[in-house]
Amino acid sequence: MPDKTVTACLLIIGNEILSGRTRDANLAFLGDNLNRLGIRLTEARVIPDEAEVIVATINDVRARFDYVFTTGGIGPTHDDITAECVARAFGLPLIQNPEARAILEAHYPPGDLNEARLRMANTPEGATLIENPISRAPGFQIGNVFVLAGIPSVMQAMFASSSHRLTGGKRLLSASVTAALPEGLMAAGLKAIQKRYPEVEIGSYPFHRMGVYGARLVLRSVDEARLAAARAEVRELVEQLAKDAKNA
Amino acid sequence: MPDKTVTACLLIIGNEILSGRTRDANLAFLGDNLNRLGIRLTEARVIPDEAEVIVATINDVRARFDYVFTTGGIGPTHDDITAECVARAFGLPLIQNPEARAILEAHYPPGDLNEARLRMANTPEGATLIENPISRAPGFQIGNVFVLAGIPSVMQAMFASSSHRLTGGKRLLSASVTAALPEGLMAAGLKAIQKRYPEVEIGSYPFHRMGVYGARLVLRSVDEARLAAARAEVRELVEQLAKDAKNA
Repeated sequence: MPDKTVTACLLIIGNEILSGRTRDANLAFLGDNLNRLGIRLTEARVIPDEAEVIVATINDVRARFDYVFTTGGIGPTHDDITAECVARAFGLPLIQNPEARAILEAHYPPGDLNEARLRMANTPEGATLIENPISRAPGFQIGNVFVLAGIPSVMQAMFASSSHRLTGGKRLLSASVTAALPEGLMAAGLKAIQKRYPEVEIGSYPFHRMGVYGARLVLRSVDEARLAAARAEVRELVEQLAKDAKNA
Repeated sequence: MPDKTVTACLLIIGNEILSGRTRDANLAFLGDNLNRLGIRLTEARVIPDEAEVIVATINDVRARFDYVFTTGGIGPTHDDITAECVARAFGLPLIQNPEARAILEAHYPPGDLNEARLRMANTPEGATLIENPISRAPGFQIGNVFVLAGIPSVMQAMFASSSHRLTGGKRLLSASVTAALPEGLMAAGLKAIQKRYPEVEIGSYPFHRMGVYGARLVLRSVDEARLAAARAEVRELVEQLAKDAKNA
């Protein structure tokens, strides 16, 4: 690739996702929206609400990826420990952020801003807030780590209000061909095309629907012309094989 | 906890999940079904189809968790590299497994078992096969690593045919209370209950539906009696707060 790839890692914090009760909806949104900015989501981890695990994971991934996004654990209850864990990971004190406090004071009716809700004003010292246009309690950014809410609508709004801070590289373009043919029939042809187009990443994603085995063939590249050429070859391969199968 | 917790990690292998095109459906299934066996899914990672990343991740997690499950990357196409990566991670040769080859030979009509499909018979030396009653090409187990298909129906069938090999601990029981109250009103009471029930893990999972902020309060413990007692207290708290809110 001509440009350095800009990478991101998502940390989904929450026992609820791991137990299977709640399905994450944030990974797909971030994967897609980061790519629009030329940033490639190259890893995602789902980790439990345990301080030691969160701190160690943040320190592992913030050194290895250009950007880290966390979702979950920034509400007012005792199990919301993301802010304090991020502060610990950075070796920074957790402070009551005056700007965040002012936002909460403006939002809640007098008397409603109790101790638990005030916890949502805590950030590592030096953090930059991320606006939350929906339920007000802000997220924050410290270094390359963006701390977002877990509720999808709130996470998405926070992403929108902070994405101008991200600097992407070349956008990875994609194209796809859906084939109602078993992968095993296409594999040799696809391998040959992949060999001729090293700058295009060709993935085959099988499905099994109503008794039919097929695959979605997805091509991705930063090079638009090569992507189009590779896609034309894949399409031709699939059409030829479908014809052969019909006549067989 | 009286027993040692038995842990598992899931590796979801596939660019397709990271790009946001395909939503993973395997995490929720495994989280739930492992727990039924007394095994706690304590981490999940989504990683790309890149050999170096897959090998390093397998070696990291197989040392840290009792069981590791991988999904994806065991088909016949060039981007299916899970088996060779697992072999590399274990420092074992990748062989054509005779038992797996016999399964494929019995399944495909004469002449259809081409070179690409034969790749699905490759396993690390010494692996134990995992039966695939749906599309036949087997998964395999080596050490504490279970290599499963990515297609959910096939993955679930493979899990069913290999789960008798797993040894769980005490099953984590759960109970929940849904509250149509903002978390900030419940936080102090929940924290007090959590303090009195250290053996029960109390999580608050907020939602925002049709303008209402609420939370699902989920309690989990291996101790049935303490779980029931904690749940009764949480329920009472929610009912009291709802009454207060109504009268306010």
